[in-house]
Amino acid sequence: MSKKRVLVIGGDGYCGWATALHLSARGYETAILDNLIRRHWDNQLQIETLTPIASIQKRLERWKETSGKSIELYLGDINDYPFLSEALLDFKPDAVVHFGEQRSAPFSMINRERAVETQVNNVVGNLNLIYAIRDLMPDCHLIKLGTMGEYGTPNIDIEEGYLEVEHNGRKDRMLYPKQPGSMYHLSKVHDSNNIYFATRIWKLRATDLNQGVVYGVITDETADDELLINRLDYDGVFGTALNRFCIQAAVGHPLTVYGSGGQTRGFLDIRDTVRCIEIAVNNPADRGEFRVFNQFTEQFSVGQLAKMVQQAGAKMGLNVEIQNVPNPRIEKEEHYYNAKNTALIDLGLEPHYLSDSLLDSLLNFAVRYKERVDMNLIPPHVLWSGKKSVENQSDTSPTEPQKSQEPALVK
Amino acid sequence: MSKKRVLVIGGDGYCGWATALHLSARGYETAILDNLIRRHWDNQLQIETLTPIASIQKRLERWKETSGKSIELYLGDINDYPFLSEALLDFKPDAVVHFGEQRSAPFSMINRERAVETQVNNVVGNLNLIYAIRDLMPDCHLIKLGTMGEYGTPNIDIEEGYLEVEHNGRKDRMLYPKQPGSMYHLSKVHDSNNIYFATRIWKLRATDLNQGVVYGVITDETADDELLINRLDYDGVFGTALNRFCIQAAVGHPLTVYGSGGQTRGFLDIRDTVRCIEIAVNNPADRGEFRVFNQFTEQFSVGQLAKMVQQAGAKMGLNVEIQNVPNPRIEKEEHYYNAKNTALIDLGLEPHYLSDSLLDSLLNFAVRYKERVDMNLIPPHVLWSGKKSVENQSDTSPTEPQKSQEPALVK
Repeated sequence: MSKKRVLVIGGDGYCGWATALHLSARGYETAILDNLIRRHWDNQLQIETLTPIASIQKRLERWKETSGKSIELYLGDINDYPFLSEALLDFKPDAVVHFGEQRSAPFSMINRERAVETQVNNVVGNLNLIYAIRDLMPDCHLIKLGTMGEYGTPNIDIEEGYLEVEHNGRKDRMLYPKQPGSMYHLSKVHDSNNIYFATRIWKLRATDLNQGVVYGVITDETADDELLINRLDYDGVFGTALNRFCIQAAVGHPLTVYGSGGQTRGFLDIRDTVRCIEIAVNNPADRGEFRVFNQFTEQFSVGQLAKMVQQAGAKMGLNVEIQNVPNPRIEKEEHYYNAKNTALIDLGLEPHYLSDSLLDSLLNFAVRYKERVDMNLIPPHVLWSGKKSVENQSDTSPTEPQKSQEPALVK
Repeated sequence: MSKKRVLVIGGDGYCGWATALHLSARGYETAILDNLIRRHWDNQLQIETLTPIASIQKRLERWKETSGKSIELYLGDINDYPFLSEALLDFKPDAVVHFGEQRSAPFSMINRERAVETQVNNVVGNLNLIYAIRDLMPDCHLIKLGTMGEYGTPNIDIEEGYLEVEHNGRKDRMLYPKQPGSMYHLSKVHDSNNIYFATRIWKLRATDLNQGVVYGVITDETADDELLINRLDYDGVFGTALNRFCIQAAVGHPLTVYGSGGQTRGFLDIRDTVRCIEIAVNNPADRGEFRVFNQFTEQFSVGQLAKMVQQAGAKMGLNVEIQNVPNPRIEKEEHYYNAKNTALIDLGLEPHYLSDSLLDSLLNFAVRYKERVDMNLIPPHVLWSGKKSVENQSDTSPTEPQKSQEPALVK
C-alpha cells in the first residue's frame, strides 16, 4: 500500500517544519502550505528565533539535496479561499494537518487588534478548510491542532474531548466544557466547535489534537544541518516555558517563573509531536467522527520545570537562579490538574519522557547559540489585565480612549 | 433615582426596535446604534417584511411626535472600532443591549461566504464591544442576545448557562456544553465563550440572554402607527416558525412543517422580549459575573404550533392545511427537550402565554397585509447539506469547485 499524501498547513513553523520533514523522511508524499506570516510577525514585534533559520525555499532545496525527497510548497494564505481550493485540488491530500494558526496566547492579548486578528485568522482559515474539504474532497482527513489550554484548569479530571454527563437521572455524552485562558485559546475552542458541527452535519472526518506545551528542538531530520534547523523561540510572546527556561539558564538570566509557579500543564517533546501526527495520519477518523486526542506525555508544574532546569544546569557548571516574577497572566496558580492522555498511547505512541539527557542537550544547544540572545526579549511584556507593563506606561488618562500599542519588546 | 441610559445595538431590527420604543416609553434614556445591514441583506436576497416599515430616521421622527421622547441614533457599524468608541463615549450608557448580529440560521448556511460573514460579523462586533467596555466604561452592563439554539437538543435537562458536574468523585460548576445547529448558532456560542472570558479576566458585568423563538409583532408602542410598525418576516431565511405559519395561513399556503415536526423549542411573545430586556437592565449582573438567562416562556414542537394555527384559522373561516415538507435542516426530529427558564420569572417576568386571542390577532394582522406576500419567498431554499435545492441545481460536476450561489429566492 502506498503511503498517504499529507498537506502540512503551517509547515514553515516550529511544529509544522519538524512534522513535514518527519513525514517526508518516512515516505509520505508531503507538501507544505504556508503564508510565512510568522516571519512577518517576528519582524513586526522585533523578535527572533534563537536559531538562525533559513528561508522556506532554501530549507526545501537543502532537504532535497540531503534526502533526495521533494516537498512541494504552496505559498499563500488559507484565508484566501481560491488559493486554498487550488492548492488542495493540485496536491490531492489524503490528510491535511492544520498547524496554520496564530498560536501564541500573549500575542492574542497584546491589544484588541491582535485579539481580533487572532480570532479572525484562526476561525476563518479553519472554516475555509472545512468548506474546501466538504466541497472538494469530503473523504480527506482533517487533523487539526488544538491545545490543552482549551480546557483551562477545571476542578475535575480532564477527559479526551468528551464528558459522560449524568444529570437529573438522564445521561448524555457531550463535548467537554472548556475554560480557555486567552483570546488565542478561545479561538481554538471556536475552531473545535465549528469542526464538531461539520462532522455532525456533513460527515467530515476530523481529529482534534489538544496539544500540550511543546519543548525541544532536535528531531532526526532537523538536528545537524544549519539549513534544516528548526526555530527555537525564547521571547515572552512566542517562547514556551521549558524552552525559555533552558535559554535563560544558558545566558545567565534568572528563570522567569510566573507567580508562585504552581500552574500545572501537559508537556511533550517535539519528537513526540511529529510521531503523534504520523499516528493520526495512519489511523484516520471515521466519516462523521470528531475524534479528540489529548496530545501530551507528562504533567509538570512550572515551578517543577524550573527546578529541573536548575539541577541540569548545575551539572553543566551553570549557576541558575529562579525568580518568581509577577504573573502577567490572569490564571489560577494553585489548582487541581489531572488530564487523560491514553488514546495516542493506545495507538502506539512511545513517549520521550523529559530526562536529564534531554535537558543536557537542550541546554547545550542553547549555549551554542547564546550569542544570539537579546536579553530585552526575555521578560514578559504582555499583561492579561490590559494595563500597560511598567516600561510601557504613559500619561494617558484611563477615561480617554487608549491608543493601542504593541509591547515595546525592544527598548 | 433617574432611569438608566440604555444603548440598543441593532435597534432597527425586529426585537431591537420593539425594545428601544418600550424602554423610551418608560422613561429610559434610549439610543439606537445600527448599521442598517439587515435592510441591505433584504435587498440582496430580494426579501421583504410583510409590514411596510419606514426608514429609521422617519421612525424616530414619528416617535418624537407621538411620545414627545427623543431616541438618539448612531448610524454605523460596531465592527468599526473608532465609530463604536465615539458612540459609547458620546452616549455614556449604563447598559448596552446587543441585538446587532446576523441572526438567521438559514442565512449562515447559504454558502461558505455567508457562514464566514456571519461568524466574522458577530464575533468581531462582540469582541469590539467587550474591549470598548473594558477600556472606556468598565462598569457598563453588557446585555447580550444569545439563543436557546446554542444548547441544541441534549438528552439531559437544559439549565440556565451552567451545569454542576460530578465526575470521578470531584465536582465543578462549568459552562453548559453546547451543541449548536448552524454556523449562526455557532457564532453565538463563540460570543458566549468570549464574554465569559471577559467577565473572568477583566471583571466586566454581562448578561447572556439565550432567547427562544420570538413570535408576534404588536407591542404597546408599535401597534397602531404605520410609521412605527415593526417588521414581520415570513420568508424562509429570516422568518421564524409561528410568524411564518400565521402568514402562510392568511394567504392559503399550506403550513410548511419541516420533516415530522417533532422538533421542540422554547418560544416567547415579543411583548415578553421587551420586558425581559427591561428586567435585565434594572437588575445588572455583578462585576465579574457572567449571568445566563434562558429567555423563553413555553415549549412547543413545530407540529403542535402548526395544529394551533390550523385551529385558530378554522375559527376565522380559513381552511389551513399542514404540509410536512422535506427538512432543509439537519437536526433531530424527535428528541428529549426540557429547558429551564425560572431566572427571569424570579425577577418578575409575567409571561404572555400563546393563546387563541394572540393567534387571532396575529392571523388578522397577517390577513391585513396579505396582498404584500410574495409566495416565492415562503418555501425554504437553503439546505443544511450544502447541496443545491431542486430549483437551484446546475450541471456543475461535484468534483469541480462549485461556484457559491445565493439561493434564488425569487425566480
